[in-house]
Amino acid sequence: MDSDYGIPRELSDLQKLRSTYQPLLPPCLQGTTVRVEFGDATTAADPAGAHTISRIFPHTYGQPLAHFLRETAKVPDAKLITDHPAIRVGVVFCGRQSPGGHNVIWGLLNALKIHNPNSGSEGLFAQKTLEVTDDILTTYKNQGGYDLLGRTQDQIRTTEQVNAAQAACTALKLDGLVIIGGVTSNTDAAQLAETFAVAKCPTKVVGVPVTLNGDLKNQFVETNVGFDTICKVNSQLISNVCTDALSAEKYYYFIRLMGRKASHVALECTLQSHPNMVVLGEEVAASKLTLFDLTKQICDAVQARAEQDKYHGVILLPEGLIESIPEVYALLQEIHGLLRQGVSADHISSQLSPWASALFEFLPPFIRKQLLLFPESDDSAQLSQIETEKLLAHLVEAEINKRLKEGTYKGKKFNAICHFFGYQARGSLPSKFDCDYAYVLGHICYHILAAGLNGYLATVTNLKNPVNKWRCGAAPITAMMTVKRYGRGPGASSIGKPALHPAIVDLKGKSYELLRQNATKFLMDDIYRNPGPLQFDGPGADAKAVTLCVEDQDYMGRIKELQKYLDKVRTIVKPGCSQDVLKAALSAMASVTEILSVMTSSSNSGATPQPKK
Amino acid sequence: MDSDYGIPRELSDLQKLRSTYQPLLPPCLQGTTVRVEFGDATTAADPAGAHTISRIFPHTYGQPLAHFLRETAKVPDAKLITDHPAIRVGVVFCGRQSPGGHNVIWGLLNALKIHNPNSGSEGLFAQKTLEVTDDILTTYKNQGGYDLLGRTQDQIRTTEQVNAAQAACTALKLDGLVIIGGVTSNTDAAQLAETFAVAKCPTKVVGVPVTLNGDLKNQFVETNVGFDTICKVNSQLISNVCTDALSAEKYYYFIRLMGRKASHVALECTLQSHPNMVVLGEEVAASKLTLFDLTKQICDAVQARAEQDKYHGVILLPEGLIESIPEVYALLQEIHGLLRQGVSADHISSQLSPWASALFEFLPPFIRKQLLLFPESDDSAQLSQIETEKLLAHLVEAEINKRLKEGTYKGKKFNAICHFFGYQARGSLPSKFDCDYAYVLGHICYHILAAGLNGYLATVTNLKNPVNKWRCGAAPITAMMTVKRYGRGPGASSIGKPALHPAIVDLKGKSYELLRQNATKFLMDDIYRNPGPLQFDGPGADAKAVTLCVEDQDYMGRIKELQKYLDKVRTIVKPGCSQDVLKAALSAMASVTEILSVMTSSSNSGATPQPKK
Repeated sequence: MDSDYGIPRELSDLQKLRSTYQPLLPPCLQGTTVRVEFGDATTAADPAGAHTISRIFPHTYGQPLAHFLRETAKVPDAKLITDHPAIRVGVVFCGRQSPGGHNVIWGLLNALKIHNPNSGSEGLFAQKTLEVTDDILTTYKNQGGYDLLGRTQDQIRTTEQVNAAQAACTALKLDGLVIIGGVTSNTDAAQLAETFAVAKCPTKVVGVPVTLNGDLKNQFVETNVGFDTICKVNSQLISNVCTDALSAEKYYYFIRLMGRKASHVALECTLQSHPNMVVLGEEVAASKLTLFDLTKQICDAVQARAEQDKYHGVILLPEGLIESIPEVYALLQEIHGLLRQGVSADHISSQLSPWASALFEFLPPFIRKQLLLFPESDDSAQLSQIETEKLLAHLVEAEINKRLKEGTYKGKKFNAICHFFGYQARGSLPSKFDCDYAYVLGHICYHILAAGLNGYLATVTNLKNPVNKWRCGAAPITAMMTVKRYGRGPGASSIGKPALHPAIVDLKGKSYELLRQNATKFLMDDIYRNPGPLQFDGPGADAKAVTLCVEDQDYMGRIKELQKYLDKVRTIVKPGCSQDVLKAALSAMASVTEILSVMTSSSNSGATPQPKK
Repeated sequence: MDSDYGIPRELSDLQKLRSTYQPLLPPCLQGTTVRVEFGDATTAADPAGAHTISRIFPHTYGQPLAHFLRETAKVPDAKLITDHPAIRVGVVFCGRQSPGGHNVIWGLLNALKIHNPNSGSEGLFAQKTLEVTDDILTTYKNQGGYDLLGRTQDQIRTTEQVNAAQAACTALKLDGLVIIGGVTSNTDAAQLAETFAVAKCPTKVVGVPVTLNGDLKNQFVETNVGFDTICKVNSQLISNVCTDALSAEKYYYFIRLMGRKASHVALECTLQSHPNMVVLGEEVAASKLTLFDLTKQICDAVQARAEQDKYHGVILLPEGLIESIPEVYALLQEIHGLLRQGVSADHISSQLSPWASALFEFLPPFIRKQLLLFPESDDSAQLSQIETEKLLAHLVEAEINKRLKEGTYKGKKFNAICHFFGYQARGSLPSKFDCDYAYVLGHICYHILAAGLNGYLATVTNLKNPVNKWRCGAAPITAMMTVKRYGRGPGASSIGKPALHPAIVDLKGKSYELLRQNATKFLMDDIYRNPGPLQFDGPGADAKAVTLCVEDQDYMGRIKELQKYLDKVRTIVKPGCSQDVLKAALSAMASVTEILSVMTSSSNSGATPQPKK
């Protein structure tokens, strides 16, 4: 061991108890033998992008879905994996830490040991590695953080980084490399898989959806490891603040939540804790609300509450909100463009377009400074550093004071307190759900590698049901990709690289509908709800995310159901059946086929979450 | 019901479970009959102030201690309270909310009902009242916040406020008034008790020590309701941030903790979660560390860690720290003086003394603005609004950059992330300890009133042991008072009013010693400990504050032990005993008496926490 990772540490009583918690496995992964059933070859959700994706990922595009089934499953084509050579697997934590990450490693190691005790797992981190053993894992089981291995940089993308990864895999003689992370890391995993395939490097690459943002969401992936914990810890704190607001009766709390571009965390926390208001980035982008519109909207809410003699409230803001405001987004694009050209932050304001410059000068100094920060690796602004909550509190206060002077607002003084909730949740002990989910995903990684698959993401579906109903599988990462079309600047137009893009909150989805139905009650009636601190025993310990339960996502289940229908038609219309039956089948299937062709020819109408902008 | 308090509300599963939790009562309060034993007449800890206190509180100074004992207790002089007329009691939440406050009301109501079902409890809030019934309490039992009644202003002190309180008590025909709060509120309770006694108003006033600051601490009071919860919730978050720091390995987190002038919360949280560093206000004041010293101290720590290739860390700062830095305190005094003279914030900087002005101009603009805020009712700065964590992060960054240039620091770039933890903990569901403690205190309030006492604080001692070992009593609030000597400005000198002053962290105490013993390990070895989220079941649910367990506070127990010795001497040296025995007793007692006289004649050397400055 040539690193200082994995040092023994002092655990509290609760940590000790949690370290003895044994997550369950769904029936299909129990026992020593697992069947793998391959489904149809996959495509990409956006047919227009499919061609681009297939061109860039010739070796890993179009691979079939994989379902893992129990040994006794009666599926004719399922292959029984009986060959279990000793394999060496490397593991990397990519990008931001998310509660539960350690359990992926534990699940993987456990599966490795069950199927071949000579297998091994190697934590890979820069030049440092750590052989992961049961002993070392003891104090990390069911614990938060990524501190067993530390986390890498946000990306493995440049030619240098990819070459370094390949060299490391070859040097360590790895049969598999497991990449634990969100959309960026799993895009890199797909790229690495393709590169390895081209170079005939024997290391297979597997991705695992672990991100507190909850934005690696698509037809194959229902939620991400860490999202459940983050939303529970944040909801605890938001609820405490709601109770505080109701007790003090004199403050408006503006709370910004971590979660990157999309507003999944903010939506889930709202449904758990019922604050007075939430402003989703997706709503703002869809309605093209300006900073002025937003300020007015909040002021109107404050005024309506003042008329009921209420001078307190809690307002949630996702950190991605700032980029969803059209004019701020445009300003950020100009700033980032100049920064990339090497213009220093001090000289940017003088080089902005007149329009952007006017907005920039209007903003308070602290926000100006934050907008000038260099963009992140995914091209977004440094969202965790931009205090949108302070900006809005500032603008709302100014507007309320103006209304007070004009006599249109007749209430008491407006007082705001601002918070940013993120870092204090990210390192939490993972919830039972996240412990189980991550552990099962770790097991699946092993089976993906044992089946010799490359460029797949481990998936578990039907997650809203108990673990014994969970369905395990794997999907090629390329099948989750989309292609962004850039249209920045006059006349400029280019096609981006295929990538996993953060799924945004679906404004036609059931979770958002639930929010809309309750928004007025939340705003006016203070029906605050306190889910309390994360519990590991008793009521609430098995609670699942509201959005996970409301959204009926069972895509994999439906794919299988469709297969059954197709099989049934084939069985009924066997050679020898009557002419009438055959005719009816032909006519019906012709019509079905036509409908589906029409639906898939226009590329952008699918129900799949579309990348923003 | 003429207010909108006490409206029914939706509880989460965990809240529902908690609302069914029945706190235990110590044996002395079980059953329908309780004995009260009066101890010796009390004095004040500071003999020099005793005269002033007795002059200002002629009716309520010098009253005896009261101990509540079970019916069967064999104490010769204990009075059995058998007379239980129906009594009406008013309850006020004073000042800042603290988790567990609601349980005081529940305990009181429960005791009222047990001893006379015709008794009643009335929540008193401004002109609004709410008759508290079991029904209304249902959803508030074991819950956080003060939202059943809302909270009043921070004080009942001016003649107007006191008259209004008296008028309300008379109008409502109250036999008792229970004031729930911290040092300020209980000082007001004592004043109200005296005023009522002078005016022959029949309402008796009782105080209850409820404050998250944990600073209503003296020989009679071991800890306050809310402190346990606040420290647990904050420690959870601090631990999460520690895990985050260790995972990301690139940030220093500066966390400011709510808790007013004293650093009890910061000390307790440090002992629970083992962050790298804590800067106690009491240390800074005692060592007269300047802003420059502090910056240097933190930079040296950062540099020492960098030499071990560690670029992360977690540093705790109590919110009161800013006032403990001598030159900042002096600056604040000048600013507050000018503000009280009516000088507007915009004109203050030009009217400061040259010395204060130089410091003011040196500080970054955001801090300047915060220092200019009007002081609070207890004369302190608006501590929750002054971002000391940002100031120190800013100064440390500047100093590290300077060292980097000079070549004395050779490590990586220093990155800080700042947090303020307070509001997000204050509204938490109370811990089991706080639920029990508050409920028992509520019961004691009833017995104080039933015994006809006025100006007392309800007390429970031996709290570090299980509930069945708790000792219940009451002490006159005047016995906890001290008198501050002001010496502001050249030549000026006046004697302040007697008051309860916040106890500061005892730098000679066992808790601080424990911190010092571990400080180097905490700083260098990252032995972070995660107590996890507040649990209501399983390990950790019955954990008690480290400082409570370490400090062996049992003052009331020792008072009783001393009484036993005195009684024993009296029994042994009865008339008829031998001359020798009598001589020995006389000589021994003369020596004891002399030692004690010497010790108490110099007023400031006691082990009692002394008011700061």
